[in-house]
Amino acid sequence: MAMDLSSPYSPARSPATLAARCGSPHLVLRRPRLATVRCSVDAPKQVQVQGRPAAVAAEQAPAARKECYGVFCTTYDLKADEKTKSWKSLVNVAVSGAAGMISNHLLFKLASGEVFGPDQPIALKLLGSERSLQALEGVAMELEDSLYPLLREVSIGIDPYVVFEDAEWALLIGAKPRGPGIERSALLDINGQIFAEQGKALDAVASRNVKVIVIGNPCNTKLDENRAKCQLALKAGVFYDKVSNVTIWGNHSTTQVPDFLNSKINGRPVKEVIKDTKWLEEEFTKNSSKGVLIEKWGRSSAASTAVSIVDAIRSLVNPTPEGDWFSTGVYTSGNPYGIAEDIVFSMPCRSKGDGDYELVKDVAIDDFLWERIKKSEAELLAEKRCVAHLTGEGNAFCDLPGDTMLPGEV
Amino acid sequence: MAMDLSSPYSPARSPATLAARCGSPHLVLRRPRLATVRCSVDAPKQVQVQGRPAAVAAEQAPAARKECYGVFCTTYDLKADEKTKSWKSLVNVAVSGAAGMISNHLLFKLASGEVFGPDQPIALKLLGSERSLQALEGVAMELEDSLYPLLREVSIGIDPYVVFEDAEWALLIGAKPRGPGIERSALLDINGQIFAEQGKALDAVASRNVKVIVIGNPCNTKLDENRAKCQLALKAGVFYDKVSNVTIWGNHSTTQVPDFLNSKINGRPVKEVIKDTKWLEEEFTKNSSKGVLIEKWGRSSAASTAVSIVDAIRSLVNPTPEGDWFSTGVYTSGNPYGIAEDIVFSMPCRSKGDGDYELVKDVAIDDFLWERIKKSEAELLAEKRCVAHLTGEGNAFCDLPGDTMLPGEV
Repeated sequence: MAMDLSSPYSPARSPATLAARCGSPHLVLRRPRLATVRCSVDAPKQVQVQGRPAAVAAEQAPAARKECYGVFCTTYDLKADEKTKSWKSLVNVAVSGAAGMISNHLLFKLASGEVFGPDQPIALKLLGSERSLQALEGVAMELEDSLYPLLREVSIGIDPYVVFEDAEWALLIGAKPRGPGIERSALLDINGQIFAEQGKALDAVASRNVKVIVIGNPCNTKLDENRAKCQLALKAGVFYDKVSNVTIWGNHSTTQVPDFLNSKINGRPVKEVIKDTKWLEEEFTKNSSKGVLIEKWGRSSAASTAVSIVDAIRSLVNPTPEGDWFSTGVYTSGNPYGIAEDIVFSMPCRSKGDGDYELVKDVAIDDFLWERIKKSEAELLAEKRCVAHLTGEGNAFCDLPGDTMLPGEV
Repeated sequence: MAMDLSSPYSPARSPATLAARCGSPHLVLRRPRLATVRCSVDAPKQVQVQGRPAAVAAEQAPAARKECYGVFCTTYDLKADEKTKSWKSLVNVAVSGAAGMISNHLLFKLASGEVFGPDQPIALKLLGSERSLQALEGVAMELEDSLYPLLREVSIGIDPYVVFEDAEWALLIGAKPRGPGIERSALLDINGQIFAEQGKALDAVASRNVKVIVIGNPCNTKLDENRAKCQLALKAGVFYDKVSNVTIWGNHSTTQVPDFLNSKINGRPVKEVIKDTKWLEEEFTKNSSKGVLIEKWGRSSAASTAVSIVDAIRSLVNPTPEGDWFSTGVYTSGNPYGIAEDIVFSMPCRSKGDGDYELVKDVAIDDFLWERIKKSEAELLAEKRCVAHLTGEGNAFCDLPGDTMLPGEV
């Protein structure tokens, strides 16, 4: 599962392929089945659906829609309304772990228009667990109370085969956090199973062009990029909007490689601006203690994690500024850098703003950078062997080196 | 303190006046004193400043600014930069209770541009307590990591006389929540003292034109208005953007009066659209059980409360749509409805978008509505007597009727 868990993003791939095995660029989707989500303001009843875990009940709603919550069950015609007729078509966004802390920030950002823009109406499809279903209803109530004009539909449920139906974006946040004493290998196995199951559901019912962003632990590369930008700005004494071309290469672990060779400050190479090579090679490279600090002080970093998810999506739905790039974990197949194929590895990317990305091909790599990239690559290949049983590549063999979990990732 | 605590807003008034006594429309500000906030990425040291509670240390920063956090200490010239030279001047926004759950949502909304607009750079001045100071540092770190271009300055501290300096907006969120067994009268006293102290600090050091929004318990009228809109939409089977002209009259308690006489759905009077008078007079009027439900299910409603604060500010910095209004708790002095003077009472308002408001004068009031308004007015007058010792109006005499705390307000 190394290739899946290490990546926040795998666009234009089959989600099932993502969860099952890598390298196959095309997907075949089964026909969507009928949804079985209720429409009511009362607490949901649970029923057994086709032997799968209890799904939200299929009370036939008074309104025409089958999947909805409360006021989001109303019918409307965006094209007939003067205020909304110039809007784009509704986009279906599925979010797992929807009752959790990161979602509690992210969903409101999605609904406000901050992510997809002020003319993009949105349908939120929220996946929770049996345990979190009432909290999920609370989330839907709070979304109602927020009166966001762009938020047109909200559905909630605990069956991914229902909730993911027709999803055009799938933001997979729900995963087991790393509790005390849980090894990285155990986490890869547990969360690998979660994502494998959700990948199958996406394959079965999501939109053919669904974009999948895996956020659940240990995936978080975009936040690392933001933190690296902030570190460089702080060291150079400039505002962070002057820092560009920052790449995080590799895994989301202590082997991740923040690239100071190609990063720029005010358009100039970082090494020309920050002369402190020792700081760049040592402190900057391993400076991820922020997470520890934030959490030690009794806070999660849910808010900034949600912001980094927003950034990851915005990087794909807005054209990348000329000359700049962003980094995100993507499939290595066909990469120009000689990184092993068939893993998911954070690399520099550009987007035309169409939701897709292309790799930046001409990024310089020196010996120092290459050595570190190879180390992160070796780790990802080892992690991939840990979850071979989930990817259909035989028996798992898990022999990870020392603990490379990033501090603060609990 | 009834007039203060009942109101989320008192623009163009002296904050000290707000906290001390009502009715005086003008304010005289003392000269701002020098700030004593540090600039460093290390954990702050605390020192005693002029006998007041420990303030954040006055380490002389390497950067030119005196009050700042981390990367927000950098100097920049917005007017010299092609990307930012068309922006407005920086707006100073102070937030109390900045390490709390509501702020954890609100601060990121302020920083993103969602509240004041995409060309309004912002300085956040965050007030915490001694106990929450490290968490506050975590908040500042998360704001750094979010790389919001509009967020130009962040300062943190625990001394309102320092943190509120030059504040143009003051969002007073920090207050004692209502724990088990705490009476409304006790809460009025405790939080009244907090707001009185902060009012004095605002009077001393804030901008002459500071706008003050009091959110701390029991103030929350804008969320009530949002919930009322949602209830009407749900009952009528329309989307909530079709509901307008909703007023909450009075206090933020079970005596609050959601006005269905003047509210409109698709431009038509609610009573023409919703024929169920019993529902309007009974369920709609007392339908505030949502808060209970949300909290019973293990969630706070911090996110939607933050959204309602955003709505309250946006109502004042954007022109009110023609024919519509919003409601918020404001001084009753000179009101056209015969409501007692010198209390803070939620009423229908309009704004030109200049940050100020005017009362809507021609709203119809029938016997049913008037009777309820008088009941809420009586409660506010009684609550005012509870905090007479804080407003300089003699000895407090507190004789409140039964518990009118809204459910969910804990």
